[in-house]
Amino acid sequence: MARNLIRVLEGESLSPPPVWLMRQAGRYLPEYRETRAKAGGFLDLCYDPDFATEVTLQPIRRFGFDAAILFSDILVIPDALGRDLAFVAGEGPKLRPLQVEEIERLDPSLAETHLAPVIATVGRLRSELPDETTLIGFCGAPWTVATYMIAGHGTPDQAPARLFGYRHPQAMEKLLFLLAEMSADYLIRQLQAGADCVQIFDSWAGVLDEASFEAFAVAPVRRMVEKVRAAIPGAKIIGFPKGAGALLSTYRQKTGVDAVGLDWSVPWSQAKAMQTDGAVQGNLDPLRLIAGGRALEEGVDRILEALGDGPLIFNLGHGITPDAPIAHVEALLKRIRG
Amino acid sequence: MARNLIRVLEGESLSPPPVWLMRQAGRYLPEYRETRAKAGGFLDLCYDPDFATEVTLQPIRRFGFDAAILFSDILVIPDALGRDLAFVAGEGPKLRPLQVEEIERLDPSLAETHLAPVIATVGRLRSELPDETTLIGFCGAPWTVATYMIAGHGTPDQAPARLFGYRHPQAMEKLLFLLAEMSADYLIRQLQAGADCVQIFDSWAGVLDEASFEAFAVAPVRRMVEKVRAAIPGAKIIGFPKGAGALLSTYRQKTGVDAVGLDWSVPWSQAKAMQTDGAVQGNLDPLRLIAGGRALEEGVDRILEALGDGPLIFNLGHGITPDAPIAHVEALLKRIRG
Repeated sequence: MARNLIRVLEGESLSPPPVWLMRQAGRYLPEYRETRAKAGGFLDLCYDPDFATEVTLQPIRRFGFDAAILFSDILVIPDALGRDLAFVAGEGPKLRPLQVEEIERLDPSLAETHLAPVIATVGRLRSELPDETTLIGFCGAPWTVATYMIAGHGTPDQAPARLFGYRHPQAMEKLLFLLAEMSADYLIRQLQAGADCVQIFDSWAGVLDEASFEAFAVAPVRRMVEKVRAAIPGAKIIGFPKGAGALLSTYRQKTGVDAVGLDWSVPWSQAKAMQTDGAVQGNLDPLRLIAGGRALEEGVDRILEALGDGPLIFNLGHGITPDAPIAHVEALLKRIRG
Repeated sequence: MARNLIRVLEGESLSPPPVWLMRQAGRYLPEYRETRAKAGGFLDLCYDPDFATEVTLQPIRRFGFDAAILFSDILVIPDALGRDLAFVAGEGPKLRPLQVEEIERLDPSLAETHLAPVIATVGRLRSELPDETTLIGFCGAPWTVATYMIAGHGTPDQAPARLFGYRHPQAMEKLLFLLAEMSADYLIRQLQAGADCVQIFDSWAGVLDEASFEAFAVAPVRRMVEKVRAAIPGAKIIGFPKGAGALLSTYRQKTGVDAVGLDWSVPWSQAKAMQTDGAVQGNLDPLRLIAGGRALEEGVDRILEALGDGPLIFNLGHGITPDAPIAHVEALLKRIRG
């Protein structure tokens, strides 16, 4: 019997729907903060199978979510390329900004060794998770990873990468396809190590115009899906092109992902129409979870009413934030599961 | 004979389409920087009819855009409510953050006097502009204005206002409808003073989920449109709910605006479909203008190919930025006008 999240990815409608939360292993949990303090830096947590396994399991133990997601970060790929990744407290990630002439010299040959601890974590997780819990592997989409590599840090509108793409379209494609190959290999290894499915996070897909979306968001992910499925036929893949709006259906058709993650701005009527092509995942505004009470209940109810009788994986429309009260997460689960 | 932008708002298709750029009176122009230096602060510029008229006319003189847009700011409405608006260099606008219990006491009675210099500017502009140039008045949409009033400054995701709306939905509606009434009065006066049409900027509409979009973005703007048209039958109104994605068509139908402004992420196929209901305005990525060359040409060509034979007002998908080269603005106009 397949795990319930996988059944939904195969097109089944389950009531109640399976539920997990993006960034569910995180700072809103006291047990996470405790482990994090022991581990030292954020990257120490990501690359230590003991610590990474522990924090991945914490929200499963506490809440019994239907899926666990590997604890890691989308920027381990540029880290494996030697881009001097560091997480600075209060400032987010920093990397050595990528210059156009460096793209030819990027060397993915160390990635397998560099990422071995993450793959070890996946194996540990599959053996330690309850049998019914789905294990989700993940990586960043090439475009989103590239936005950080080019700017050297997070930006409000990804202007450095967008401008880079307009000025150096060939170099940008080269970079994105190198990242696509590496990321596909990384996902294949996660699936071989025990992940039941994988999610590709394209957090900054929404800043692209239609032509750039095709070239920078769709094409590299299509390549990844092809490569993963060539190695592992039938591999289940969730794409999450945040902010893709009216392009979400196109994205699923053209990339071949099984399910599409929806941010909270996606209207429920659009999401409902998308369920005729397969599963959708989302899309509660994380701030409804912070507010709790009526705002939380109404948000959950609207999603269940609109999408509950189709293939749905309940989730937030973006990651849970550190200020989310644990009691509200419990209320969310109670509202969904009854 | 109506001015060409108004003809497009009435549903006509013109070739080449009329063109103007959001924030076209701005820091990328040396003559603007010079006037700004004379005026002192940004608000001194907004409230001085001599200076405001001068900077509004500058891009018309230099480029011959089809429309001039009143030089002002969306935050003159909270300024008229005594919210201590100030523009801090390098930090953007600051206001006294609005507390929920203050909403009852907000007093719009001083707005007419406070905004009189802006209305005087509109009158001056209509008499000084070339006869063929359309004059666009504007205001912020209640939701976007409220996001600044509640946070007291700009924020990346408008979390303070979203949370306020979830926690205090009735107070939020009260605030939005007070802003809607004031803003409608303000637009009516602009139209009476000589504006040919008006635009309502909802820069932060895209952060709302579907239920909040209906309550906070659609409903107050519908009220504004009704009030403006009751005073001025047939008044032409452009709505620009940035980031509204798949909800753009709904927005036009439910608010009753004549034309919808499109940010650069709106796909051209969606925009094309929207032209069956009326005019669209947009939507070149402002960074294509910065990049120039092929990126600029391809962006312009894609928009003209997709939308050029329907009712189109050519514009950027967001405001022009201070680093835009003047030569690229000239190249843009040449590409559109041939």
